[in-house]
Amino acid sequence: MAQYILLAILFIPSYMLNEWIIFNGGLKLMPGSFTDTGGSIVIHAFGALFGLGVIMTMTTKKEFDTKVESDETSNKFSMVGSMVLWLFWPSFCAALVAPELIPVTAVNVVLALCGATIATYVASVLLRGKIGIGDIANAALAGGVAIGSTCDKTNHVVAFIIGILAGVLSTVSFAVIQPKLQEKLKVIDTCGVLNLHGFPGLMGGFAAMFVINDINRSAQFIGIVISIIIALVAGLISGKLLSVFGRRAEPYFDAEEFIAD
Amino acid sequence: MAQYILLAILFIPSYMLNEWIIFNGGLKLMPGSFTDTGGSIVIHAFGALFGLGVIMTMTTKKEFDTKVESDETSNKFSMVGSMVLWLFWPSFCAALVAPELIPVTAVNVVLALCGATIATYVASVLLRGKIGIGDIANAALAGGVAIGSTCDKTNHVVAFIIGILAGVLSTVSFAVIQPKLQEKLKVIDTCGVLNLHGFPGLMGGFAAMFVINDINRSAQFIGIVISIIIALVAGLISGKLLSVFGRRAEPYFDAEEFIAD
Amino acid sequence: MAQYILLAILFIPSYMLNEWIIFNGGLKLMPGSFTDTGGSIVIHAFGALFGLGVIMTMTTKKEFDTKVESDETSNKFSMVGSMVLWLFWPSFCAALVAPELIPVTAVNVVLALCGATIATYVASVLLRGKIGIGDIANAALAGGVAIGSTCDKTNHVVAFIIGILAGVLSTVSFAVIQPKLQEKLKVIDTCGVLNLHGFPGLMGGFAAMFVINDINRSAQFIGIVISIIIALVAGLISGKLLSVFGRRAEPYFDAEEFIAD
Repeated sequence: MAQYILLAILFIPSYMLNEWIIFNGGLKLMPGSFTDTGGSIVIHAFGALFGLGVIMTMTTKKEFDTKVESDETSNKFSMVGSMVLWLFWPSFCAALVAPELIPVTAVNVVLALCGATIATYVASVLLRGKIGIGDIANAALAGGVAIGSTCDKTNHVVAFIIGILAGVLSTVSFAVIQPKLQEKLKVIDTCGVLNLHGFPGLMGGFAAMFVINDINRSAQFIGIVISIIIALVAGLISGKLLSVFGRRAEPYFDAEEFIAD
Repeated sequence: MAQYILLAILFIPSYMLNEWIIFNGGLKLMPGSFTDTGGSIVIHAFGALFGLGVIMTMTTKKEFDTKVESDETSNKFSMVGSMVLWLFWPSFCAALVAPELIPVTAVNVVLALCGATIATYVASVLLRGKIGIGDIANAALAGGVAIGSTCDKTNHVVAFIIGILAGVLSTVSFAVIQPKLQEKLKVIDTCGVLNLHGFPGLMGGFAAMFVINDINRSAQFIGIVISIIIALVAGLISGKLLSVFGRRAEPYFDAEEFIAD
Repeated sequence: MAQYILLAILFIPSYMLNEWIIFNGGLKLMPGSFTDTGGSIVIHAFGALFGLGVIMTMTTKKEFDTKVESDETSNKFSMVGSMVLWLFWPSFCAALVAPELIPVTAVNVVLALCGATIATYVASVLLRGKIGIGDIANAALAGGVAIGSTCDKTNHVVAFIIGILAGVLSTVSFAVIQPKLQEKLKVIDTCGVLNLHGFPGLMGGFAAMFVINDINRSAQFIGIVISIIIALVAGLISGKLLSVFGRRAEPYFDAEEFIAD
């Protein structure tokens, strides 16, 4: 548990540093304002890439060789969790927008989630032959991740399209990219955070450059690049620091830390 | 999956046709305005009767003879789903009412749900000897279905009574009417949609004729009849069209379409 | 089932009597106004102590000797329920506050819940060696219970501290106090209501005396004492009355009252 707490203590200043540079003009690196209302970049992609940095230094060979298990019941619980995330996503994205923009923001988020949900069903069948329940529990939420940057600044049609693209991207990422990336990097992204929060988050941040008329495109691009760099570097350093306090030889199992019966 | 998509494509214009006739004076069939804020008729009853039309042409003998299975765990997941529906029902009904009517609408819906929940417990014990968990997971929501038409136009006492009546109606429908109806029509209503959305929805639409003082009673009655006819006819036609793309001999099982482990 | 209904009929007037005395000046027992916006005292502690009164007269020896069972799946469902309570707690506490105080109230409740959740993890590991999933499912909510009295009248730092203290108190109560209290009183608090709603509720009510500047301290103290007395006495009387209609020899099991498969 000490390592979880240490990880939290290392993550929070990294996150705040990035927000300070991107939104508050810290270090004067940004040439203009950055658009990311619902946090596609600074929350989702940042967290996912930070995590990628951490696992790069933490995963051991034995962990890598152990299959991550799931069964019918655990997948049903995942679906319950996804349902709750789906339902509360509009209020998450609308939390910081002006009251008069809440309705349009909420509808945009719902449409993006609908687009991603439908796209995930279709993409999952095309890629796997059947519907992967893990795809639905994850990629169906990618629309919410990707619409974050533009949720209060675009129209309903664009929101729906962003959702569809995010669902496809996330499903392809789960079914095709993740296995290859894991083989290449020899790391395990247990929950597929990169597939759900990483790539769709980046997509959402870049999408803002094309769908918002009066956006400062170079600021948007530079902000994304800065976020990627800070997240990866901070994640790598955090992982190195955590490793000092021990690396696991055996893969994690619940009973090690929980009294669950 | 192609048949699900086709069904969606057939359903949406049917639903829109009905709304256009009922609310927008399409075809000049309505003699006045129709009261259905939360969609007891145009959402719940319409959907249930459309589904009834579809299954009339789709159910095969082998499917009919196979028992629909549930177990303790699947019933617990149903209860989780019902809980979430219960909690969000007030906001569903209040979504389109004027801001100043939201509190009274929300309280009316909560009271209707409470009435239905209590009534379902009592009715379930009286009809089955014990509490049927399937009754609770379904009929407890019937108050939300039935209060739809009048949720922003009635008082708390009437809302509570509508909820109680809907809970009793839905439980009787699950325990008594459904087995007889299935035997007679040789169709299977897997989720009991007719018991939860069909009958309580119709009850709610008719209840509006008695509990709202300045309602146009003939318009309300005609609107309900039109909705029933369009739903059943559109459902039958949709079912026929779907059948062209094949009818199942074997009952559905999850693993056929899902990778769930 | 008759006994449940009787219990509800006995509880409601007790609850209303207490509210009438505490908030409406009934019997002229209160020397000033009582602060309990989110019901730490009049809802949580009152209900818990009422229940304590009831079980004191109801628990039989055989029930007492039977272990309350839970397993991995039932604990996961508990966590789902806790998650839903956690998510809706801010709106529960903010339901009756003035619109302009809703944001500060909601943030206070979220911070109190965060404090309790973190404190529960730490306290559970310190007391049990591992994280008790039952502690997390319960004590993590203690922050919401304890912040009730002061949710709209304190600042974010104090709210977070109240949450931490409540989480620790509740976990200690589950792990240390409950076993001793059960042995002493020979009663079973099946769901640990005293640990989650009782002690943290009282703590929240007393905390108001110290963290709100312009509070009437003697009124707050007297109100809490009155609530404790009414709850216990009404619970004891209700338990005695229920016992007239029979006491169980055997512990309760689901299948006795539910058709769940």
